[in-house]
Amino acid sequence: MALLNKQVLLAQRPTRKIQSTDFKIVETPLPALADNEVLVKIAHISLDPAMRGWMNAGTTYIRGVEIGEVMRAFVAGTVAESKHPDFKEGDTVAGTMGAQAYAIVPGKYLTKVDATKVPLSWYVGILGMPGMTSYFGLLEKGLPKEGETLLVSGAAGMVGSLVGQIAKIKGLKVIGIAGGKEKCDSLITDYGFDAAIDYKNIDNIAKAIRAAAPNGIDIYFDNVGGEILDAALLNLANHARVVICGAISQYNETNYVGLKNYMKLISARGTLSGIIVLDYFDRAAECITQLSQWLASGKIKYKEHTEQGLDRFAEVLNMLFTGENKGKLVLNV
Amino acid sequence: MALLNKQVLLAQRPTRKIQSTDFKIVETPLPALADNEVLVKIAHISLDPAMRGWMNAGTTYIRGVEIGEVMRAFVAGTVAESKHPDFKEGDTVAGTMGAQAYAIVPGKYLTKVDATKVPLSWYVGILGMPGMTSYFGLLEKGLPKEGETLLVSGAAGMVGSLVGQIAKIKGLKVIGIAGGKEKCDSLITDYGFDAAIDYKNIDNIAKAIRAAAPNGIDIYFDNVGGEILDAALLNLANHARVVICGAISQYNETNYVGLKNYMKLISARGTLSGIIVLDYFDRAAECITQLSQWLASGKIKYKEHTEQGLDRFAEVLNMLFTGENKGKLVLNV
Repeated sequence: MALLNKQVLLAQRPTRKIQSTDFKIVETPLPALADNEVLVKIAHISLDPAMRGWMNAGTTYIRGVEIGEVMRAFVAGTVAESKHPDFKEGDTVAGTMGAQAYAIVPGKYLTKVDATKVPLSWYVGILGMPGMTSYFGLLEKGLPKEGETLLVSGAAGMVGSLVGQIAKIKGLKVIGIAGGKEKCDSLITDYGFDAAIDYKNIDNIAKAIRAAAPNGIDIYFDNVGGEILDAALLNLANHARVVICGAISQYNETNYVGLKNYMKLISARGTLSGIIVLDYFDRAAECITQLSQWLASGKIKYKEHTEQGLDRFAEVLNMLFTGENKGKLVLNV
Repeated sequence: MALLNKQVLLAQRPTRKIQSTDFKIVETPLPALADNEVLVKIAHISLDPAMRGWMNAGTTYIRGVEIGEVMRAFVAGTVAESKHPDFKEGDTVAGTMGAQAYAIVPGKYLTKVDATKVPLSWYVGILGMPGMTSYFGLLEKGLPKEGETLLVSGAAGMVGSLVGQIAKIKGLKVIGIAGGKEKCDSLITDYGFDAAIDYKNIDNIAKAIRAAAPNGIDIYFDNVGGEILDAALLNLANHARVVICGAISQYNETNYVGLKNYMKLISARGTLSGIIVLDYFDRAAECITQLSQWLASGKIKYKEHTEQGLDRFAEVLNMLFTGENKGKLVLNV
């Protein structure tokens, strides 16, 4: 009897907030493996802000998921069966295999990962796509220099907290923006940030940034967009680099808020650019090696927030947008 | 008896459109020259979009003109008297001497220019600040490569028409946006552009850009901001460079329009940066030499629109914002 697979399909495109009816959970029998294919039993699914964008129609940097298609997701798991010469049963692997219990994938799209020294789940987080986003976004686009000041929003999240920690290693002053006292305290005590701004408990974000960085911001790493991005633009130092990673505050808006203060980029001789992590996949090994060293030596800390069950996919994904998660959000199958 | 000077002072800060009451014309006796000072009889005053920004309070890339102060302006003229060893009566000079009939300037702030081969007025235009804006903005920020496609707005203006012509010399396909049939025809017949978009006679600018550049825009040189900038963002090719020179459509607005499509920069792996011509003043000679060669060989064309009389300063300056001028706007004293 064929093994039953459980899959999270995109059922409809959300207009604002993600609803459980946007997805449909189905059970389908798994087909037999073809040559060069691998059957992976998925253990960990990464939940990322970018998913909201993938649920839209059309192509931006990547095509939107089709209605009825398995929701795109970065996952990690164990090989259950292999017809590809490079993989055998028991190998731990990671890749874009979708939100489902099992995946049948051509071997060439899989990456073998070493889960003997770190938990397998780290490969969908700090040693996976979000870790690479922080690493390459900061180093390749932010171009940090010792003594500079970095501001990062969404600072308590996976990408933000790692950006801040790498910037500290590089000798920068680091200011984080997060929502709530608990998250802000954690930036300083857990991640070693120099200052934290609680955007939920201040009237004027631009003023708070100015107070924390009186000489201006050399690098702004943006994870949220909207008002906070506009406030950061007002505080750029000359030759500042603004790196846009996501615009999580905008993903659920149909009335897109425009950027008001972009002319400040001009007067500050600044640049604004984005980080698309797909462009750096061929340099994954370099990033994983460096981050693993920093993790092993205690220079960076990593927190996971784990939830259970494919059936709860929509509910758990929404935690990213309400800010409920504490650490990198991972759904275990 | 002391010589009488005529000066254009900033009388009040405009909120929207520039009015004649924003300036006050005064006549004041000229003081005697101090050591190292030079008395310049001003002949030509450059009128530039940037002036609208200088009329605002506060400091952006440069401080705002104070109420009661002579309006800042780039000018060219002839030395009438000199107490500086490097200058003598009859020398032709250019510099930021303000909107007035005479200026007394420390010699170190003056640049001697050669008006024997080209008209003196060219040094406030194509061989002055606006020429440098086009030259360095395109070459240093736009980074043009042969075979690429460039879009420029405000294309019939001094900066825009020169950007397009330099891009043609560098082997790019050049598309210009201008207002009205006459200006658009001129882009193609006078300046050798490949295509022109008349924004006053189309419903959908984004669509018109897409039709002219089906593979997208590699460089967008923005002279206008607002809606046209947003439409250009929708049409960026991968790795596009957006160079912001001015935002003339926004200068007169108190309700600043936000940039809606900046996330397109991210998905296109683009960058957005500004050109502040002051940063390149130490490289003026390089630019003047190259542009003079291109002018002499007929590779670039230059049109001036000349008006007369300091008393008409406000009225003539407004022509920039209504689009009435045909060519670089110069006010002769």
